[in-house]
Amino acid sequence: MPLNSMQDLMIHKLQDIYDAENQALQAYPQIAGAVSSQELKQALQTHQQETQGQVQRLEQIFQQLGAQPGGQTCNGMQGLIQESQKIIQEGGAPEVLDAAIIAAAQAMEHYEIAGYGTARTLAQQAGMTEAAQLLEQTLEEEKQTDALLTRLAEQNVNQKAQQAGQ
Amino acid sequence: MPLNSMQDLMIHKLQDIYDAENQALQAYPQIAGAVSSQELKQALQTHQQETQGQVQRLEQIFQQLGAQPGGQTCNGMQGLIQESQKIIQEGGAPEVLDAAIIAAAQAMEHYEIAGYGTARTLAQQAGMTEAAQLLEQTLEEEKQTDALLTRLAEQNVNQKAQQAGQ
Repeated sequence: MPLNSMQDLMIHKLQDIYDAENQALQAYPQIAGAVSSQELKQALQTHQQETQGQVQRLEQIFQQLGAQPGGQTCNGMQGLIQESQKIIQEGGAPEVLDAAIIAAAQAMEHYEIAGYGTARTLAQQAGMTEAAQLLEQTLEEEKQTDALLTRLAEQNVNQKAQQAGQ
Repeated sequence: MPLNSMQDLMIHKLQDIYDAENQALQAYPQIAGAVSSQELKQALQTHQQETQGQVQRLEQIFQQLGAQPGGQTCNGMQGLIQESQKIIQEGGAPEVLDAAIIAAAQAMEHYEIAGYGTARTLAQQAGMTEAAQLLEQTLEEEKQTDALLTRLAEQNVNQKAQQAGQ
């Protein structure tokens, strides 16, 4: 579908994020199942539940736009999920795998931060105040998840992994 | 290669970023060639030159670690580049394509921000002060490029695209 207007671009971007979030929802159980830190497992499971709410927000916006949520395959998220699966398949010391999975999950979060940032700005500029607020709400959740993963890595997981490898 | 130590993870992560940057270097000319805003083209070309310096920094770190830079294929960046190529192939109004390409380039930047953030923290925690500083330097450049793309979108490209689509 050619991008002839900013409305086309907004729908394209929202469909891309919608597919990305649904791919992530499918992938989270395997990722959370592969970690050994209980705190990390809990953080990933909480984010999985949060993602279900984020998907519903997107569906609300599609309704406002009179557009369908399906139609895009998000290659970016596909690649990011492949990376996390590769790490799990390669295996290693459980504590080091936890640190590696945090890194892979943060790459997924950053994809979403970039995507929601763009979609929020497009909605603002189109005067879609309610949609912009919904997207901003999700953007903040993604940033908080990313910050939580950084804290878990720096304060807990990485130290254990350092000891495991010695 | 199983991840048995944090050194394994650091090398894995650096090889992943190294491949991502090299893929990006291959892709930038096509992406910059597809935009119509001169300011945006200039920003992408400047970042391409900057990326060459970032690749050299990574090679310096590999030397310090006594490790090879090759060996990983970055599926994440592969997917992100496929997305930008899909946008270029779909076509549309040139101003709207510019806005879409900014979004795709920001997704690539965010992948790198996540990757360098992880690598910098791993280097700090391993007491590799010089490597941590080199990675921090690149991380700041990636964040500045992302911020520049946001400014270009908000102050220039998106308005033109909005007018084009009316």
